[in-house]
Amino acid sequence: MQFNVFKDFFNPKFELFLRDLKINEDFLEMLIYTPLAGGKRLRPFIIFSIGKELGIEQEILERVGFAVEIFHSGSLIHDDLPSIDDDRLRRGKKTHHVKFGEDNAILTGDYSMLLPVKILNSLPVNSEISKKIVALWIDCSLNVVLGEYLDVKMNKVPNKELLKDIYILKTAALFKFCFAAPFILKDQKYDEPEKIGTDFGISFQLLDDIKDEISSSEVLGKTPGKDKKQNKLTILKFVSLNEAKKTAKEIYFNSLKRVSILGLKETSQELRSIFDLIEIS
Amino acid sequence: MQFNVFKDFFNPKFELFLRDLKINEDFLEMLIYTPLAGGKRLRPFIIFSIGKELGIEQEILERVGFAVEIFHSGSLIHDDLPSIDDDRLRRGKKTHHVKFGEDNAILTGDYSMLLPVKILNSLPVNSEISKKIVALWIDCSLNVVLGEYLDVKMNKVPNKELLKDIYILKTAALFKFCFAAPFILKDQKYDEPEKIGTDFGISFQLLDDIKDEISSSEVLGKTPGKDKKQNKLTILKFVSLNEAKKTAKEIYFNSLKRVSILGLKETSQELRSIFDLIEIS
Repeated sequence: MQFNVFKDFFNPKFELFLRDLKINEDFLEMLIYTPLAGGKRLRPFIIFSIGKELGIEQEILERVGFAVEIFHSGSLIHDDLPSIDDDRLRRGKKTHHVKFGEDNAILTGDYSMLLPVKILNSLPVNSEISKKIVALWIDCSLNVVLGEYLDVKMNKVPNKELLKDIYILKTAALFKFCFAAPFILKDQKYDEPEKIGTDFGISFQLLDDIKDEISSSEVLGKTPGKDKKQNKLTILKFVSLNEAKKTAKEIYFNSLKRVSILGLKETSQELRSIFDLIEIS
Repeated sequence: MQFNVFKDFFNPKFELFLRDLKINEDFLEMLIYTPLAGGKRLRPFIIFSIGKELGIEQEILERVGFAVEIFHSGSLIHDDLPSIDDDRLRRGKKTHHVKFGEDNAILTGDYSMLLPVKILNSLPVNSEISKKIVALWIDCSLNVVLGEYLDVKMNKVPNKELLKDIYILKTAALFKFCFAAPFILKDQKYDEPEKIGTDFGISFQLLDDIKDEISSSEVLGKTPGKDKKQNKLTILKFVSLNEAKKTAKEIYFNSLKRVSILGLKETSQELRSIFDLIEIS
């Protein structure tokens, strides 16, 4: 499946899954707000692309994708809070705390960050595989939180070395999971997929920084140039736009090559199509 | 072991465990602040008491106890935030956000609520048991968050029926886990322990409400009468102090009886000793 049609395939299933959760009705409305507010669904796309090529059952891949998207939304809800990034607009809509209040945003974020563990721990797979998936997941989700902490902290004292750690923890951790999870489900070794996922994630964050620098409001759905305005620490504080583009492309295409070497030719091509869509030059 | 000496046994081990976590040094300082700020250690005491009588290895019980205490601290850090309970004092010390700032309190809370999954998923037990422990754990931790949401919400519209739900979700969920976890570790049925834990938790919350109403500052380590001042919804909004005491005692002692019926005579006596220490009349 191509990236540009994946969203239309994924979103209806995701919405059904969310609306079917057995929790307090008012809370559910708050829980589904951010996951359903949009988003590229890049992370579940990666899981699907690799998982399909490995021959994993679609229903399992869906659930893993839901888990990642729910967590990602939860971490965005917290990042957007006034005491952290103070964002009022996300994916073209009001951020969670603007819509529901800070107290509710904190608790919805908590729930969204915990719920994926339940989803991943109850996949219809044997308990050995289940344990491995949860182990990798919880490490990645803890790293996302730690990365956000470093991000908040290092904005006060810019440091290029730390920036790489932030990229690895805050963004690349989830990609690492997405690349490795299908291999765990297939009961295969997953150290190389983890490494590829990390590199892919780093290049994705670089591309995101670059896009934020050059894009217009319509494309982003968030305040453009905001990172710069907030004096937010990105790679562009240390290198030129051209240099950043060059580095991002190199890492991105090197990841695709390694995906191909793992035998996933189709995935490699599908990931290539993403790059064309988020073209930055 | 008696409850009054358990803290001195548990705390040094807990501190060692926390300080040994392999994470960023500054973040670690924030992570250990609330767990080491005090607390009765009632939840790990229950796990120990039941687990020892069932013959579970001590090191495993310790880790389960650490997990519960870390999560409990994380949820307190979020509850204390200005947009939720706005507490500035907890266990006689500054609350987390007063000490480290709101941004750090949010992220430390996130980490503390996720970390227990890692601890419980890596216990040295077989993967079937591991999966069961994580499944019960994640349900209980999600319920704590949902209970806090209802608590925040229902303070605006008091409702006695909802109060019971709040007690069950916000407080009793963790007790349910503490009562059931040792039985899971022993690979035994755990539905009755879950029920006893829930009832025990409800009675504990009632006792806590009653204590808050009648205690002095030294005993509580938090602003006394604060619940009332904030117009916080507790059982005392609906029944008299005497009636609340009577109900709390009845549920508490009924739980102990059922613990005894399960064959845990020693545990039943140890839990009895807790009641004598938190005597409320």
